[in-house]
Amino acid sequence: MYHVHAFATPNSVKVPIALEELGIDYTLHAVNVRKGEQKSEAFLALNANGKVPVLTTGDRSFTLTESAAILVYLAETHGKLLSQDPLRRARTFEQLFVHGSGLSPAFGQAGYFLKFAPDPMPHAIERFSSEANRQLKLLDAILARQPFVAGDEYSIADIAHFGWIWRRAFPDLTLDEAPHVQRWYDAMLARPAVTKAIGKLERLANANA
Amino acid sequence: MYHVHAFATPNSVKVPIALEELGIDYTLHAVNVRKGEQKSEAFLALNANGKVPVLTTGDRSFTLTESAAILVYLAETHGKLLSQDPLRRARTFEQLFVHGSGLSPAFGQAGYFLKFAPDPMPHAIERFSSEANRQLKLLDAILARQPFVAGDEYSIADIAHFGWIWRRAFPDLTLDEAPHVQRWYDAMLARPAVTKAIGKLERLANANA
Repeated sequence: MYHVHAFATPNSVKVPIALEELGIDYTLHAVNVRKGEQKSEAFLALNANGKVPVLTTGDRSFTLTESAAILVYLAETHGKLLSQDPLRRARTFEQLFVHGSGLSPAFGQAGYFLKFAPDPMPHAIERFSSEANRQLKLLDAILARQPFVAGDEYSIADIAHFGWIWRRAFPDLTLDEAPHVQRWYDAMLARPAVTKAIGKLERLANANA
Repeated sequence: MYHVHAFATPNSVKVPIALEELGIDYTLHAVNVRKGEQKSEAFLALNANGKVPVLTTGDRSFTLTESAAILVYLAETHGKLLSQDPLRRARTFEQLFVHGSGLSPAFGQAGYFLKFAPDPMPHAIERFSSEANRQLKLLDAILARQPFVAGDEYSIADIAHFGWIWRRAFPDLTLDEAPHVQRWYDAMLARPAVTKAIGKLERLANANA
């Protein structure tokens, strides 16, 4: 039985989505990041980096951090959501890293400087908001020519990108000018695994608000 | 024959290091990022995201972006630098994503706000410099208990982390308080593949300055 330490965050949601898609049983544990619980001593023993999500086994003999690394691990150990074909795999990893190193930091920093920074910093807001917009447009161009982010097959790269597209209100983004991302996002929301995972995570967050 | 479109940057250097380690022949092509060549029309046709490095075949029938995705592709297609063992793989991917989504953006943004931002923004400098320092200390703690970043075997995760540790002067970081990173960095520089790749990349950058 897997345990997922998480909250209703862009990175957390990826793990229960993958587990639902793979039909794997799991237990969610709330880490209230709004109260800073990810910096608690107990949580830092689980992930010294102080970030959700974390995947563990019941006895904690296995602990894995980094949402995208968890996606790769689950896909590889269960033989789904990550093609064996070298070219399809390459496109999937390309999008996993576009998400992790490009879209995700841009969305996160844009939201931070728009909403949490102690002083208004127009240059920082502009820097990260324009990069977040640029990343959204690049994703839209990719989804204009293929159904899924890494090609014609649903993969863990779609699950990775879903996290921040789902939480796009934080950096004040909409899909109004990204019609292909909108179509893909609607297709993601039509997947029972996605809505189930979101439901469980939101109930967890509400119960631990 | 592979072609690598690159410059003397933290992300570029990873690809020639991996190619040298694997004993694969390649040709380097300069993309002078200081002159903004990564935003040129010709380069955007290769990578719409406007970033080096890009790996291509001679006829460009195959093109791959994102340095870490290139590392995974090369390791998997050549059967080296990425273990087949699920747990070792998990630790390798964990560090690839720690690097891509954590250390790398922190080092890059810290350097930007310290050196390139139009106005001094103390809060942004503090935000990214303290995160870059935190990431360096986390890496030091990992390397205190094992020889390589993903365990006892050299892997593509070491090559990934090397890029920014090599370019640590940009965010004004030193290894003075990271002795285990220093030991690992020295071991990296003792690898002929690493020095060869750096030498080729620096000659390329100097010839296209």
